[in-house]
Amino acid sequence: MSGVAYHLGDLAKELGAELLGSGDVEITHAETIQDAGEGAICFLANSKYRQFLTTTKASAVILNSTDAKQCPVPALVTDNPYLIYARVASLLYPVSAVTGGIHATAVIDDSAKIHPDAWVGPCVVIGAKVEIASGVSVGAGSVIEDNCVIGEDSKLVANVTLCHDTQIGKRVIIHPGAVIGSDGFGNANDKGVWFKVPQIGCVQIGDDVEIGANTTIDRGSLRNTVISKGVRLDNQIQIAHNVHIGDHTAIAGCAGIAGSTTIGKYCTLGGGVGVTGHLELGDNTHFSAQSLVTRSFKNPGYYSGNLPAVPNGEWRKTIARVRRLQRTNQRISRLEQTACLSQDESDSSQED
Amino acid sequence: MSGVAYHLGDLAKELGAELLGSGDVEITHAETIQDAGEGAICFLANSKYRQFLTTTKASAVILNSTDAKQCPVPALVTDNPYLIYARVASLLYPVSAVTGGIHATAVIDDSAKIHPDAWVGPCVVIGAKVEIASGVSVGAGSVIEDNCVIGEDSKLVANVTLCHDTQIGKRVIIHPGAVIGSDGFGNANDKGVWFKVPQIGCVQIGDDVEIGANTTIDRGSLRNTVISKGVRLDNQIQIAHNVHIGDHTAIAGCAGIAGSTTIGKYCTLGGGVGVTGHLELGDNTHFSAQSLVTRSFKNPGYYSGNLPAVPNGEWRKTIARVRRLQRTNQRISRLEQTACLSQDESDSSQED
Amino acid sequence: MSGVAYHLGDLAKELGAELLGSGDVEITHAETIQDAGEGAICFLANSKYRQFLTTTKASAVILNSTDAKQCPVPALVTDNPYLIYARVASLLYPVSAVTGGIHATAVIDDSAKIHPDAWVGPCVVIGAKVEIASGVSVGAGSVIEDNCVIGEDSKLVANVTLCHDTQIGKRVIIHPGAVIGSDGFGNANDKGVWFKVPQIGCVQIGDDVEIGANTTIDRGSLRNTVISKGVRLDNQIQIAHNVHIGDHTAIAGCAGIAGSTTIGKYCTLGGGVGVTGHLELGDNTHFSAQSLVTRSFKNPGYYSGNLPAVPNGEWRKTIARVRRLQRTNQRISRLEQTACLSQDESDSSQED
Repeated sequence: MSGVAYHLGDLAKELGAELLGSGDVEITHAETIQDAGEGAICFLANSKYRQFLTTTKASAVILNSTDAKQCPVPALVTDNPYLIYARVASLLYPVSAVTGGIHATAVIDDSAKIHPDAWVGPCVVIGAKVEIASGVSVGAGSVIEDNCVIGEDSKLVANVTLCHDTQIGKRVIIHPGAVIGSDGFGNANDKGVWFKVPQIGCVQIGDDVEIGANTTIDRGSLRNTVISKGVRLDNQIQIAHNVHIGDHTAIAGCAGIAGSTTIGKYCTLGGGVGVTGHLELGDNTHFSAQSLVTRSFKNPGYYSGNLPAVPNGEWRKTIARVRRLQRTNQRISRLEQTACLSQDESDSSQED
Repeated sequence: MSGVAYHLGDLAKELGAELLGSGDVEITHAETIQDAGEGAICFLANSKYRQFLTTTKASAVILNSTDAKQCPVPALVTDNPYLIYARVASLLYPVSAVTGGIHATAVIDDSAKIHPDAWVGPCVVIGAKVEIASGVSVGAGSVIEDNCVIGEDSKLVANVTLCHDTQIGKRVIIHPGAVIGSDGFGNANDKGVWFKVPQIGCVQIGDDVEIGANTTIDRGSLRNTVISKGVRLDNQIQIAHNVHIGDHTAIAGCAGIAGSTTIGKYCTLGGGVGVTGHLELGDNTHFSAQSLVTRSFKNPGYYSGNLPAVPNGEWRKTIARVRRLQRTNQRISRLEQTACLSQDESDSSQED
Repeated sequence: MSGVAYHLGDLAKELGAELLGSGDVEITHAETIQDAGEGAICFLANSKYRQFLTTTKASAVILNSTDAKQCPVPALVTDNPYLIYARVASLLYPVSAVTGGIHATAVIDDSAKIHPDAWVGPCVVIGAKVEIASGVSVGAGSVIEDNCVIGEDSKLVANVTLCHDTQIGKRVIIHPGAVIGSDGFGNANDKGVWFKVPQIGCVQIGDDVEIGANTTIDRGSLRNTVISKGVRLDNQIQIAHNVHIGDHTAIAGCAGIAGSTTIGKYCTLGGGVGVTGHLELGDNTHFSAQSLVTRSFKNPGYYSGNLPAVPNGEWRKTIARVRRLQRTNQRISRLEQTACLSQDESDSSQED
């Protein structure tokens, strides 16, 4: 994609970054540091890519002051190169404004209130009493059931489903295939047979939230499921009923949060993390990829589980050794007896 | 949501629960035990919430006889409070009856048979020879390919896809984004290049099954993929070709079942469980969240895998110690030699 | 499903398999070895099913020369029974040719170029400058945003979403609910608050790729996300931005690949595998189900992680013993001191 053109000096001023070299360089687009050529700006934020700095063909690089010493071309110097890059890219590739209107094939209940500045695309279906604010874009194929409310400047890309009574804040982006407000997994057991528990809560999505493709967020069983402002959810995440996610928390793809769990503010969950139900994860807690979280962690910190992959032969032996730990402990106990040393009760007698 | 009103005494009679206190109390809605106010009924089924009992402002509580002693308000006493709650909620929040009809924007093949009592929503597409029974509701944006059959009173919420020849039983609920009958992952290898194996089986869904949002169920490669009656599937579950799931089994979100595996009746699989192919899991087997199941378990029981998350520093040390178990065993063997004790062959010589 | 009829001898000739017994047997359909009856051909490729060979009622079996000795009926003998079966099934159940045309309810931008031999189904939405080649089938409810290109004979089954500028090769199959080209999970942190990083790359899908139901593939942040020719992706896979997957690699359901990771040619990833970002997995690397891959593996080989499920009681003890490994090592060190043996520094002093 080609972007809008800027002088590097103007970008420096606009974004409050330090200019290194000529401000007259014209920036027309962004590229990676290794691919960049004439007119391109790139960034260096991950040390894995530092090897490409001295030979980059970019017209300018965004980097920190240490790396700036080796930069062969003009630069924007900053403590947070990735953030400044994001802002530069937002200027080079501005999101086009929404043109208001309703496509002829959209099916809209008479009682829905669609702001004239909002766009409703082809084959969209909108139920009774839905309220859609100014600047909203509802992409093709989306279904919005009764009583939903969508705040200003939010965007449903395409094929999004909002079940009844879902509330979406302002400037929310929802990617294709996402389902918000589906019934939670509530089942009471009657002598082996499951009886459906009515799910009568709703989903509330705060301002500035982004929700990835095919992510699902269930409605509350009684209380609402709440995604607070600024939260970022990647693709294929499952959020169960009654979950509460605090401001500015980010969750990577394929994670799953079971029912009634509360996650604090400023947390990060890696891809594939699973959190069981009725837990409380405090503010500023962080979980590495594929961790299984089975208890509450209220203190800020970095938490992990799981055995990373190794060559299969090594892994098979490791599993076998883990399975033999009882025997390992028994051997130690026998040695302790022989040496007339006191034994570790917790290891040998009690538990095994 | 506000519901229908009932007197507590009538609910007790209707549901066969023991009435404690006045039966004249009017119940208008349900709430959680901590949020409940005037007119609300709540339940106490999880001991984590017992702390809220003595101060609840609910008009009535559903609980067991032990908890009933401390209950400050009228109550319904029962051995299974969650089930009685589910039934009360079903009365307070009845599902509205389906109004028959076909929306003008639905596209329906001439050879399809739609019962006049069924509802077909906007932008629904229905293929040749599809049969839709009385009371069925097909929500907006759903696609039903040729030769599918949907039994009485089933509901496809919205944006559901049924691929050709899928059979859906009675009173089945399918949530948005679910895909039933997609081709299984069948690939034969021809010197490194994959050749697609035709998937010529179908999917059969029994009566009273519920299927969560964005869950996928592949058609059989030869035999059918079968989901038996009363099964509950949460969101984002992947069921591969030829899988057979027995009556009344419940599977939580993000679980994946590989091809040709059979799961018995009355089983439960926690969130994110992965089951490899061609296995047999017996009736009444239960698997905790994120377990990896790599062999058959035919006996009833509770099975688990995985290392739950701990603080990252502790986890890193644990991983290192697990990786050093070979060295640990060697140290023990050396001690045994020194002490002239017989060594454990399986630990030291053979395997390592 | 009933298929087309063939004589076994003709199949043998057509596919280059050795004929055992009469070539006059008529084959009308395929079934499993245990279910097969008159007119059915079946195959034996997995030793678990060998028990059914001597009693099969099939009209013919596809198997290897060793098993052929026990085969009670005519057979096709080959080194690769599953591949020959796949080819037989492709003959018995041919894919019906696409009939060109555009359904009246499809919404197509005037600037899109649809080949007259392509089929565009009901309620499909196609944006500006989209190019659709001969023989393509776009199933009901699919949304194709601006500037997408779809090569000859590709098939979007139904309810597929292609975001803008996505390029699809020839003979690609995309199953329902798949989303290609959604924004990657790019977020720069500004004092705790996330700032969206524009995702300006695209997705390129090579020829002969198959993409499963509800799988998501994000567009590149700067470079493109690339799925090379012949790749097979099962259902519910998440491919993040900038990922590159080499020719003929196959990935099973529920796997997730984080951003900027490169996977080589001829690899296989089991179900639920998670790969973290910025890694490089070489050609012919293979990963077992649910493995967590946290570092690059450049050499061909088979890699694994994870603890498979066992009975819960055993698992709880194993976890406890793993957690006590520090104490275990201390006990060994004490014994070594007592025996005046040198201690293993790495186990006792340094790390713990």
